[in-house]
Amino acid sequence: MKYKVNSQLVYTINQPSTFIFNVQVVRNDFQKIIAEELQVEPQLTFDELIVDENRNRYVRLVAPVGNLAVNYQATVDLSHFFTGGKDIAEVPPSELPMETFKYLYPSRYCQSDMLFGLVQSEFNNLEPGYQRVAAICDWIYEKVTYLSGSSNSQTSAYDTAMQRAGVCRDFAHLGVAFCRALNIPARFVSVYAYQLEPQDFHAVFEAYLGDRWYLFDATNLAPKEGFIRVGTGRDAADVSVATIFGSVKLEEMKISVDQLSEEKEPDNMGEAIAIA
Amino acid sequence: MKYKVNSQLVYTINQPSTFIFNVQVVRNDFQKIIAEELQVEPQLTFDELIVDENRNRYVRLVAPVGNLAVNYQATVDLSHFFTGGKDIAEVPPSELPMETFKYLYPSRYCQSDMLFGLVQSEFNNLEPGYQRVAAICDWIYEKVTYLSGSSNSQTSAYDTAMQRAGVCRDFAHLGVAFCRALNIPARFVSVYAYQLEPQDFHAVFEAYLGDRWYLFDATNLAPKEGFIRVGTGRDAADVSVATIFGSVKLEEMKISVDQLSEEKEPDNMGEAIAIA
Amino acid sequence: MKYKVNSQLVYTINQPSTFIFNVQVVRNDFQKIIAEELQVEPQLTFDELIVDENRNRYVRLVAPVGNLAVNYQATVDLSHFFTGGKDIAEVPPSELPMETFKYLYPSRYCQSDMLFGLVQSEFNNLEPGYQRVAAICDWIYEKVTYLSGSSNSQTSAYDTAMQRAGVCRDFAHLGVAFCRALNIPARFVSVYAYQLEPQDFHAVFEAYLGDRWYLFDATNLAPKEGFIRVGTGRDAADVSVATIFGSVKLEEMKISVDQLSEEKEPDNMGEAIAIA
Amino acid sequence: MKYKVNSQLVYTINQPSTFIFNVQVVRNDFQKIIAEELQVEPQLTFDELIVDENRNRYVRLVAPVGNLAVNYQATVDLSHFFTGGKDIAEVPPSELPMETFKYLYPSRYCQSDMLFGLVQSEFNNLEPGYQRVAAICDWIYEKVTYLSGSSNSQTSAYDTAMQRAGVCRDFAHLGVAFCRALNIPARFVSVYAYQLEPQDFHAVFEAYLGDRWYLFDATNLAPKEGFIRVGTGRDAADVSVATIFGSVKLEEMKISVDQLSEEKEPDNMGEAIAIA
Repeated sequence: MKYKVNSQLVYTINQPSTFIFNVQVVRNDFQKIIAEELQVEPQLTFDELIVDENRNRYVRLVAPVGNLAVNYQATVDLSHFFTGGKDIAEVPPSELPMETFKYLYPSRYCQSDMLFGLVQSEFNNLEPGYQRVAAICDWIYEKVTYLSGSSNSQTSAYDTAMQRAGVCRDFAHLGVAFCRALNIPARFVSVYAYQLEPQDFHAVFEAYLGDRWYLFDATNLAPKEGFIRVGTGRDAADVSVATIFGSVKLEEMKISVDQLSEEKEPDNMGEAIAIA
Repeated sequence: MKYKVNSQLVYTINQPSTFIFNVQVVRNDFQKIIAEELQVEPQLTFDELIVDENRNRYVRLVAPVGNLAVNYQATVDLSHFFTGGKDIAEVPPSELPMETFKYLYPSRYCQSDMLFGLVQSEFNNLEPGYQRVAAICDWIYEKVTYLSGSSNSQTSAYDTAMQRAGVCRDFAHLGVAFCRALNIPARFVSVYAYQLEPQDFHAVFEAYLGDRWYLFDATNLAPKEGFIRVGTGRDAADVSVATIFGSVKLEEMKISVDQLSEEKEPDNMGEAIAIA
Repeated sequence: MKYKVNSQLVYTINQPSTFIFNVQVVRNDFQKIIAEELQVEPQLTFDELIVDENRNRYVRLVAPVGNLAVNYQATVDLSHFFTGGKDIAEVPPSELPMETFKYLYPSRYCQSDMLFGLVQSEFNNLEPGYQRVAAICDWIYEKVTYLSGSSNSQTSAYDTAMQRAGVCRDFAHLGVAFCRALNIPARFVSVYAYQLEPQDFHAVFEAYLGDRWYLFDATNLAPKEGFIRVGTGRDAADVSVATIFGSVKLEEMKISVDQLSEEKEPDNMGEAIAIA
Repeated sequence: MKYKVNSQLVYTINQPSTFIFNVQVVRNDFQKIIAEELQVEPQLTFDELIVDENRNRYVRLVAPVGNLAVNYQATVDLSHFFTGGKDIAEVPPSELPMETFKYLYPSRYCQSDMLFGLVQSEFNNLEPGYQRVAAICDWIYEKVTYLSGSSNSQTSAYDTAMQRAGVCRDFAHLGVAFCRALNIPARFVSVYAYQLEPQDFHAVFEAYLGDRWYLFDATNLAPKEGFIRVGTGRDAADVSVATIFGSVKLEEMKISVDQLSEEKEPDNMGEAIAIA
């Protein structure tokens, strides 16, 4: 299935400022970039970094005083992996791929070590496997109110577990933290999401089950089939849309995601998404 | 019903230290002190303070280097008030006695303002009244593990809501905080408790419902009929068994509570306890 | 010295709401109320409560949907106690009046038990007495930025010690918490303040030294001689200008404090000001 | 300079448990491993993982019920890089190597985003560069008490900044968090340390200055020249000596670090250490 993504960020720059953007979609076997373009206005030179393991793409630029517009367009062909979720097992630490361990450790916004008691009390008796992570998503969806403006950049999973309100970032952090407290590797994923209303950058999470990573979205705001991956990290700290050093004001943010072809996904192969 | 209380605290004093003890039972209409004695060894002069409103009794003394033993014995005649809990209503803020308002405010260990989201999510849809506070106690009993040593003197209701483990003090703080977040005045009560196993100072809480304070104990460790009140306050900060300024070591603490007469409570009048 | 206070609060009421106001000045030996008037528009009946110990005055009313205006005027004759601060000693716990002990305990916004390490590190080596509390005020004034909007109703002394920004309420909480961690009884005081710019409700604190309570203001925003006491409590939870149960919007708040007589206070001796 | 490291960990295993050890020294240009041996008793198979970027070496094994002894010996030839620290500059975000950015982000135990206010207040006016990080170390050394047992595995830089007590791990976390809040990339380093008394695993930190990483140790407990690197990460979560899934008890931990040759370091080249 092909999608066209368009994202535009417009800033007023009050003093020369350095930006690290993470807005470009990732290239991998399940997500082919057919075409893409990154336009910066005014025209500025920029550095690019691709972090090997997760292939996150970062762009750095220094913006002079005035306006800055960053416009990114991409045509992406998704071929997610689909499977029934019922029989996907949790993997004991003795058998986990060793490169997944870093996603078991607590991170800034996913303090799994501090959520152990709550997780034991709420989720320990559930049947392990894909269905337990799905039950965690249901718990979050039911107990946490999606409320724009209810959290900020310092809000962590620990806070959200108590405040019971947040946005997609907070829902994803909570899912990640709960999984890690159950010894399930979990990580934060920023995506463009088809049919998200209103359009925005979206945040979801992945848990390692069976022999691959599976996507989960406790917000239920958009279908997982239409997630186009931008960044993968331990939590939002790793994949901020824009990390800014300086004094700037975001004036406008506009995202669109359109489906290009109507035909149904022909072969269920590709990036791990389990449709239980 | 008459009870005999005996409590003994033994300390080693490393440097001259000031103690504030709150171990004597309160005198009120529902709790008559037939006899009592406070022995301090070595013999030391001490100050006494009775705080008017709650009638808490504090004793201050300065202990020299060496050993200190404080032995308190009392014979108390309890005449708790009993009633069926089903029809006891919550009182709207417009009709609450104004002296109960201080028990609506957040306090050090009962940060009700920070628990509002959790309380809305978990308890807001329950039917108001005595049964809602009872349901809060059930929630605490079910979700929080009673575990000796799992908390310390800095542990607050906010912490316990997440750690899901604590002792009687933590259970009481959680009950108080949850009630306050629902605009139900609630306060911390330290008691001697008949049939508590193992014997110790016990902590429970009261909520203001209908036209009086009702006792609750989310630990279910001892029957409410046998609670002998020592201190009443906003939280444990107000009614510590011993507030100590200096360097001391608690060597021994021995509590006993015995029933003196076997005859059943003849008239159900006295301090408010609702048996739902 | 005589002052005329005028405070006006205007709300839009979206649903019938209960208010507890604490805006009236306290009557005591150092602060005589020559005249006062409380006007509520629309005309509503209200309850009044004077809390004995601190003589705080609370007014409760239930406002119907529409507008609510509360206008309070008072003419007050202040006769603060002045003394030189240099020789005022801290009082050891063994000699403190027992009614001051409640102001040694940690409270919701003044978690002195959690600030013990910082206080030991920063203030323990300072010479005890009035000058140590003055040094605490200097520390706060120097290290914490007064910044409107930098804190909210949940911000505590623990937070402010780290964020290093706040408003008068936060400065007062920090002063209270630091003192308590040094075993100096301290409490929160809300005042009208002559020459405060811009005019607003103001928050300061008191520490118990020598044989009385002394006022301190780490913000240095107005002269202590012109403080007119409204509420005294453990922290802001006790003396909110308005505790509101319902859905309302504050539309306007207007405060003025004028000096009525020009003659200079005859004996302005010493920084220390005590109001019993 | 050559060192001989010996570390021994002995556990009682109560149920079959999975261990991830990070006790082997890193191989890099500045640290040559001349000989090494890892003995596990009983003899168990284990997985090894070397994380590319930092070359941390992890060993995973599953221990059956009984005893487990892990003994690691290595002979290492250190050739640290030495330079005068005075002229080493901080690097603006626009010029930092992009792979250092991950060490600017807040992590679980180094919540730099929450320490911004404190850091602005305490360190912003200091002259930037190596000497500012050195001043941060001095601040930590002066204001934080090294106290065994004063912290636990959940203690973070935020906590330590307030509690003002901790062990090497906490000192390192504080240094890392302070640097990041100043936009200086910083990371956690676990080492064996020559002349550390008493011997133990040690934790220090690195800051990126000029064109390389420089080692800092706010504890001042051992000379930097004798640090033998084990793990490098965002914070202690990445480089735990042992991450354990199961029920075990550490019975014994024995570390020794001996210098093999007395001759002075001939050429000051190697891993970055600045001797200011």
